[in-house]
Amino acid sequence: MEINGVQIDDTFAEAFPIKIARVLITAISEHWALEAAREATGFGTSVIGCPAESGIECIASASETPDGRPGVYIQICNMGYKSLEGSLIWRIGQCVLTAPTTAVFNGLPEAEKQFDTGKKQSFFGDGYQKQMDYLGRKFWKIPIMSGEFMIEETIGAVDGIAGGNFYILADNQAAALTAAEVAVDEIRKQKGTITPFPGGVVASGSKVGSKYKFLKASTNAAFCPSLREEGTCTLPEEIKSGYEIVINGISREAIEQSMRAGIKAACTVPGVVKITAANFGGKLGPHQFKLHEILK
Amino acid sequence: MEINGVQIDDTFAEAFPIKIARVLITAISEHWALEAAREATGFGTSVIGCPAESGIECIASASETPDGRPGVYIQICNMGYKSLEGSLIWRIGQCVLTAPTTAVFNGLPEAEKQFDTGKKQSFFGDGYQKQMDYLGRKFWKIPIMSGEFMIEETIGAVDGIAGGNFYILADNQAAALTAAEVAVDEIRKQKGTITPFPGGVVASGSKVGSKYKFLKASTNAAFCPSLREEGTCTLPEEIKSGYEIVINGISREAIEQSMRAGIKAACTVPGVVKITAANFGGKLGPHQFKLHEILK
Amino acid sequence: MEINGVQIDDTFAEAFPIKIARVLITAISEHWALEAAREATGFGTSVIGCPAESGIECIASASETPDGRPGVYIQICNMGYKSLEGSLIWRIGQCVLTAPTTAVFNGLPEAEKQFDTGKKQSFFGDGYQKQMDYLGRKFWKIPIMSGEFMIEETIGAVDGIAGGNFYILADNQAAALTAAEVAVDEIRKQKGTITPFPGGVVASGSKVGSKYKFLKASTNAAFCPSLREEGTCTLPEEIKSGYEIVINGISREAIEQSMRAGIKAACTVPGVVKITAANFGGKLGPHQFKLHEILK
Amino acid sequence: MEINGVQIDDTFAEAFPIKIARVLITAISEHWALEAAREATGFGTSVIGCPAESGIECIASASETPDGRPGVYIQICNMGYKSLEGSLIWRIGQCVLTAPTTAVFNGLPEAEKQFDTGKKQSFFGDGYQKQMDYLGRKFWKIPIMSGEFMIEETIGAVDGIAGGNFYILADNQAAALTAAEVAVDEIRKQKGTITPFPGGVVASGSKVGSKYKFLKASTNAAFCPSLREEGTCTLPEEIKSGYEIVINGISREAIEQSMRAGIKAACTVPGVVKITAANFGGKLGPHQFKLHEILK
Repeated sequence: MEINGVQIDDTFAEAFPIKIARVLITAISEHWALEAAREATGFGTSVIGCPAESGIECIASASETPDGRPGVYIQICNMGYKSLEGSLIWRIGQCVLTAPTTAVFNGLPEAEKQFDTGKKQSFFGDGYQKQMDYLGRKFWKIPIMSGEFMIEETIGAVDGIAGGNFYILADNQAAALTAAEVAVDEIRKQKGTITPFPGGVVASGSKVGSKYKFLKASTNAAFCPSLREEGTCTLPEEIKSGYEIVINGISREAIEQSMRAGIKAACTVPGVVKITAANFGGKLGPHQFKLHEILK
Repeated sequence: MEINGVQIDDTFAEAFPIKIARVLITAISEHWALEAAREATGFGTSVIGCPAESGIECIASASETPDGRPGVYIQICNMGYKSLEGSLIWRIGQCVLTAPTTAVFNGLPEAEKQFDTGKKQSFFGDGYQKQMDYLGRKFWKIPIMSGEFMIEETIGAVDGIAGGNFYILADNQAAALTAAEVAVDEIRKQKGTITPFPGGVVASGSKVGSKYKFLKASTNAAFCPSLREEGTCTLPEEIKSGYEIVINGISREAIEQSMRAGIKAACTVPGVVKITAANFGGKLGPHQFKLHEILK
Repeated sequence: MEINGVQIDDTFAEAFPIKIARVLITAISEHWALEAAREATGFGTSVIGCPAESGIECIASASETPDGRPGVYIQICNMGYKSLEGSLIWRIGQCVLTAPTTAVFNGLPEAEKQFDTGKKQSFFGDGYQKQMDYLGRKFWKIPIMSGEFMIEETIGAVDGIAGGNFYILADNQAAALTAAEVAVDEIRKQKGTITPFPGGVVASGSKVGSKYKFLKASTNAAFCPSLREEGTCTLPEEIKSGYEIVINGISREAIEQSMRAGIKAACTVPGVVKITAANFGGKLGPHQFKLHEILK
Repeated sequence: MEINGVQIDDTFAEAFPIKIARVLITAISEHWALEAAREATGFGTSVIGCPAESGIECIASASETPDGRPGVYIQICNMGYKSLEGSLIWRIGQCVLTAPTTAVFNGLPEAEKQFDTGKKQSFFGDGYQKQMDYLGRKFWKIPIMSGEFMIEETIGAVDGIAGGNFYILADNQAAALTAAEVAVDEIRKQKGTITPFPGGVVASGSKVGSKYKFLKASTNAAFCPSLREEGTCTLPEEIKSGYEIVINGISREAIEQSMRAGIKAACTVPGVVKITAANFGGKLGPHQFKLHEILK
């Protein structure tokens, strides 16, 4: 299979189950909604070493949000609901409550699982917090120095999927990187997914396990072009650099849509040679995303 | 004391000791150095609920960096050297090693305290990592999918100061927020300090302690304009909104310089009425930054 | 009429006919499409003193563009088709052909009026240009240093409308400005319109004519809060600052939609007191946009 | 000569005399100073087809500007002082006076040549303008809807140089483009120069003249890699793409410094093969910038 002359490998991305909470942050301007979102989702690339996986899903225009202000959807992910609840409380309390002019809305009001995060945050009000109806939902109003902070009483979460992925392989590093940027820009326009790594991109794709027992993951040596001479790298000769895009999402369909949009966009960049995906014989997880099916 | 008609309170900011590591991240472009820096310093506003305090110090132009590439200085702070070392390892390993085209340089090579963070990161290379001299320093070269990741063997840290602060109080919220943005933009041009909160700004300035025993900090009710009617707010009538700028730094002088630059810039914004600072009778810490001394 | 407590005046915006060409610029990344768009539409606020009115309409995601690359729609406006053709040729030739990785698509392929701008640009190829079919359309391929520049043979234009407007009046300058920013961010998400002034905002709303014969427009003194003491300003006492949003568009409906979206977004900003619009007894033009009808 | 393994050709950039006015725009925030600067310097790549050459020189921090607010230096260039005066009046009047919260300062107060641009702009005040001393300089205060616009009475200009240049040639397009971006980012940190093309980069480097009599400039066919097969392209086989950086500046030294900084930064990008410069046997102009002398 080819797109724009780029070969699409007949393989699949292997992914694993994760719990995902979704939050809509609104603010006085898109600028400030984004600042809050960036702080709240930072240090959130992988549960291997971060306290959560997290990222910006997409911008919400003023006409889409309950309070008519500009907004940003974010996702926070963790392996179990208990650890996820902790992540939610601290990331919202430390990074959104503290951010100028923000309000917090439940991004999954229909989900079965609901955390009372808003109620717990409200104690910051030190007795001055008030429960109230706001735009037809149950909110807490907390007096703060700059005005009042509004947070919905509950935040919803679902059984989602982490580790959806594709690899962009190119005949030079700058092309691979530009294609990765283009893919992420396009994925950030889709609903339901995040790309949790820095700028949405993984520079150091990893394999499960390592020769060192204390390491859960290590460099994916078979994909490292600088290890070609010693025979470790199994990539075709013309490939000089590759980036991985990792995608988490609240549903299988959302991840498929983002993989499709991202791969197509990446294939418009001159120098991209091949798209592939990573799988580990089931050691990472049970979900499979077959490139040829997604792109057919 | 007045600047541009803005009253400067005769008071001081109370601050506390913290351990600070400083890292220079370079990348193929300023854009990518900033993406890595944002991910590595996110979820890092306050040690009350974040695993570290962290932030972007300043941009380093290509001519200032050892490898001649654009760069960004970041700081990572924690209460003790042991917790700081853990923060360094994970934030660099998960957020900088994984970011496209980055290299990591020791931002405090003269410091007495040096962590062997680079050496520890190098195990990600799964045996393919190599120690080498690079630009006159000791580095590790780790093969990754997109090329090679260079990291200096050690990262330095010092006894720094956290919680330097000033409050911008205005007769309307938009003016207070604009002044906060302007102050932070100016502080980000100074060396040696960070403003760890979202976009550099604290919307919900807190006091030490709470009526709820399980809370270490709660809303600074005396500074909440929405609590004026019930007599809790002690701010002058004309003040309708306020933002706090919190500053951490590697030295007393650096914090003083950033407070000076930030306050002066904030005082150019119409609607700003007063600059003050927060102190807690020594409950927060031993350091004092007197506004009138800094600004004289 | 009120929105969020903001008074909407029962008045109308007066606007005038203009000719509008619409161009889709695609590039290797959204970043570079935007750089080209900004250069091509700069120095384009008003035909009073600029060689054209021009602006960025909206971002086009990769999935929406003919070549599958990220894009930006721009509009270029002038009083007659002859002057518009000149503006198109020079702005595309000097600012888009010269911009990295761009391609130019006809943004109004269905319009009756079509300029052969692509054909005229092709002479830059100095004999090496080639006409070709591309994505089902007629294009010119011009060899350039960085690769090849693709431009559609014709660019369409229509009878549009200029000067659609609304005024955001607030009890302080920072609120008025923030509301203007928010309105423009929202309008830039709509199709079919541009806000040609700097950052989309007019700081110095004008009236038609002046006491100086050589000036076609001068400060709208009746709306200048700093002229209140001498009795010239007729604004209510509580209004301290105002910004105007000027909107050009390819249809009456597009301008109405952008006015609606922009006004609603502006009314979410605390400190905004009133929305009004400018009209000049028909001296500016025949089109009228009644606020209450648009917002009902 | 080599830098980082990149060959530096033993050649020179040919440049020509131009008149340059320099303006400092300050605003309530860096964001708004930049918006004004972008609008005022747009459609300003080359005097061949634009009404002026213009660009952003550098950011001025709040501590560097006379009014203590964030600022941006811009340059506006034209072939003679008369045409330059017209460019100044219209670009400032239409794009800076109209931009939110701006003030205009003379960027060359020591220059012999001074235009009374501020005085001429003041008529927009329709009789309400006032001359006044401001920060030790002579200013005009013009009442506008959003407040008051301050503009210095005179703007200085000097005999400058246009067309300083270097070419970045790479073995792939993405690398050439990334290197161009990096070079421009670095040049924008220097004082005294601008890079007037879109995002600072020329994608379609031109030669003087054409086979078509009506064209003053046409594609530099000898540098077009896509014309290699027919023997027109004289570039070495490994070069697949190139970008030109054009630099205007108020002095020879300023241009040399920016060429030096830009070239060094470009040479850090993998895939860059060669740096050269364009000259035309004196047909373009009398100034010569020898690469080896500048870089030694």
